[in-house]
Amino acid sequence: MLTLQDIAITQWSQLTRSEQQATLARPEQSRSAQLKETVRNIIERIKLEGDVALLDYTRQFDCADIEQLVLDDAQKQALLAQVSDRAKAAIDKAYDNIRAFHVAQTPEDITLTTSPGVQCTLKYTALESVGLYIPGGSATLPSTALMLGVPAQIAGCKTRVLVTPPNKQGEMSPEVVYAAEKCGIETLVMCGGAQAVAALAYGTESVPKVDKVFGPGNAFVTEAKQQLSQNDSGISIDMPAGPSELLVLADDTANPRFVAADLLSQAEHGPDSQVILVTPSAAVASAVQAELVTQCNALPRIDIARQALASSRLIVTQSLAEAVAVTQRYAPEHLAVQTEDAAELSAQLTTAGSIFVGHYTPESGGDYATGTNHVLPTYGYAKNYSSLGLLDFYRRYTLQEVTREGLAELAESITTLADIEGLDAHKRAVTIRLEAQEGNS
Amino acid sequence: MLTLQDIAITQWSQLTRSEQQATLARPEQSRSAQLKETVRNIIERIKLEGDVALLDYTRQFDCADIEQLVLDDAQKQALLAQVSDRAKAAIDKAYDNIRAFHVAQTPEDITLTTSPGVQCTLKYTALESVGLYIPGGSATLPSTALMLGVPAQIAGCKTRVLVTPPNKQGEMSPEVVYAAEKCGIETLVMCGGAQAVAALAYGTESVPKVDKVFGPGNAFVTEAKQQLSQNDSGISIDMPAGPSELLVLADDTANPRFVAADLLSQAEHGPDSQVILVTPSAAVASAVQAELVTQCNALPRIDIARQALASSRLIVTQSLAEAVAVTQRYAPEHLAVQTEDAAELSAQLTTAGSIFVGHYTPESGGDYATGTNHVLPTYGYAKNYSSLGLLDFYRRYTLQEVTREGLAELAESITTLADIEGLDAHKRAVTIRLEAQEGNS
Ligand SMILES: [Zn+2]
Ligand SMILES: [Zn+2]
Repeated sequence: MLTLQDIAITQWSQLTRSEQQATLARPEQSRSAQLKETVRNIIERIKLEGDVALLDYTRQFDCADIEQLVLDDAQKQALLAQVSDRAKAAIDKAYDNIRAFHVAQTPEDITLTTSPGVQCTLKYTALESVGLYIPGGSATLPSTALMLGVPAQIAGCKTRVLVTPPNKQGEMSPEVVYAAEKCGIETLVMCGGAQAVAALAYGTESVPKVDKVFGPGNAFVTEAKQQLSQNDSGISIDMPAGPSELLVLADDTANPRFVAADLLSQAEHGPDSQVILVTPSAAVASAVQAELVTQCNALPRIDIARQALASSRLIVTQSLAEAVAVTQRYAPEHLAVQTEDAAELSAQLTTAGSIFVGHYTPESGGDYATGTNHVLPTYGYAKNYSSLGLLDFYRRYTLQEVTREGLAELAESITTLADIEGLDAHKRAVTIRLEAQEGNS
Repeated sequence: MLTLQDIAITQWSQLTRSEQQATLARPEQSRSAQLKETVRNIIERIKLEGDVALLDYTRQFDCADIEQLVLDDAQKQALLAQVSDRAKAAIDKAYDNIRAFHVAQTPEDITLTTSPGVQCTLKYTALESVGLYIPGGSATLPSTALMLGVPAQIAGCKTRVLVTPPNKQGEMSPEVVYAAEKCGIETLVMCGGAQAVAALAYGTESVPKVDKVFGPGNAFVTEAKQQLSQNDSGISIDMPAGPSELLVLADDTANPRFVAADLLSQAEHGPDSQVILVTPSAAVASAVQAELVTQCNALPRIDIARQALASSRLIVTQSLAEAVAVTQRYAPEHLAVQTEDAAELSAQLTTAGSIFVGHYTPESGGDYATGTNHVLPTYGYAKNYSSLGLLDFYRRYTLQEVTREGLAELAESITTLADIEGLDAHKRAVTIRLEAQEGNS
């Protein structure tokens, strides 16, 4: 049972500076020395032993005794046969919207003549090989398979490998397999945790080595991504991960039932989820508090939601402007704006992963089906990391082509800068070309 | 003195698989436990003591006894007065080209109606505050100030802080100050090394805290960027750094004098620079070898270049196609293509930081003045990191706005997926809205 006493209402202006800081602080993430060491050992063993270690860890951590890591065609077909028509239709609809919004992000190369005879080009190329991590455990997450699989498919990454832990019967989720099939992912691997990320980073007999690893995961997965992105494997990763967050910014036009429903949908993600209401309306805060109690006690995942609500905040500000300032400072992963003129207000809000504009835009819409990506920066990283998008599956590089005349035009600038920087050979690379007889190349 | 014996020619097809791997291996980077510990201590002290520690480290590491970290107007004017007209003209020309090519990269927001009543938007917003690290030490690098300062200026990042170590007289390079002024950077701080990066990450009395740190540096700077991008400071960084590299891909139309000049301009960057020639022409390889000896022995920075050439490679392949494959596999930071139809061949080359197309495009052109950015992924990261560009000074985030009718249209997909994933509150956030009387919000 959740009671009113479990959810405090905070008056922002009555807090000291350091209390304000504490109110917006994220729960500390455990990157204990022991976690780091455990992950380091897992990585080392996967690097040395490959599949044998991967199968062993899968027995140990996922309690699944499998002999074959990669799904073969027969296994895929058997799983696909289990997917209901209703599930297929739901995934199809989500796929279409996600695809449409990500196709719209297709980048274009840029070519410019910066000075006569000097042509510069910015080119986009799809990453050659990508690894897509789909968490397993208590829930099965076909939506995450779409969020990673669709942009990888649009970009045309040649090698696309999906990894996800099997259940205790040693099987992959049928709906994840269906989503993966839609995205044209050929290689589906039953493994999870730090060992799966290590397998993607180094490659094993079964798992192809990839250039970049995407996707959310638990503390072990996150730690493995961090370590591997800085070691000799040479991989890159999508973004740092942390517990999921929702901040609702509401005024007195907000419907407290909707607000409470959104806060609870965030709270049920996990006991470490953070949910925050910021509002200039004391009446809305009280009404949301009461609704949280009513709705929470009717939820199947009440235990998880209760734990998350323990670190939740209902913050009352003195004005809407102050509410906006608090929101910008917190930089939430998900931001719901449930106010009058929500679209206008949203234009002022720049530090969020994804913004849900207006009373009829629930956060769960973006989790699944509006078309936006649900892999978002959290833990305050919405200040300096982008939300996942099509561009993350490409890399940018440049070209320049200079004619002899173009080089003559640039020569004075280049040689003078080389003089200032004391780089004589840089200067000579220009003068040696201009001294040469034309046609002598 | 450099002699022919110092530079070996390798026949690619005669190498075993593991010899080929060793030939293309990067020199190992020292991230020793001691380096990590030293940097960790510097970061901790800056975090605790701020300016006092920063001034102390500047005395200790830069041998500069300064009392004031941030340049005031009088100091700036005095330094600007020392910049020659020739230097100004060179910097102006480079600035214009870099600016033109980066302005051309200005991103546009994307809005799409993915299904009726569901509008999704991808928005770009400039990072609020950025730190620009300009290395000092033996050389002064106004070019790097332009490469970081120009895109920050175009994006319109509100807070732009340039840090660079002072010389032993406690002064900043006049040309760096001139470049910074052109880029409208107001805050110029005299500090360098790990301590400067830590100051940017946490802020001190003099140095504003920033969201993202850009720029190349020595092993201490690189280690500090790595540690700070994974700790409680919450900063992000541009890319991992490593020693600079150039690979020249040449056929028998290449001019060995030009090729040697380019290899040497890379070699003079530092003793750990890596320079590689890949060519199907044994004659070109021999001629380049001879030219390297001649030109190297005439260089002022011969000692640095000699050390770099010790780990250089002249690789002869059996065909141009094999030369392309070797190049793609190495994924060089700088790639010079000096062949017939260089533009056509370059279209096949996708794993490089920046490509210099044709006989009259020296690498030093891109270092300074063609308009492309010279901050590039190295150490093999040209497989999965982008070259620095305007987009790195923005972040992307999404918005969605759904009408009641739009939500009704998506409801079946969202609630079904919420069922599959076992997230009941996600489902309720939709149904509670559709059950509500319209206008009841
Ligand atoms: Zn959610
Ligand atoms: Zn150079």
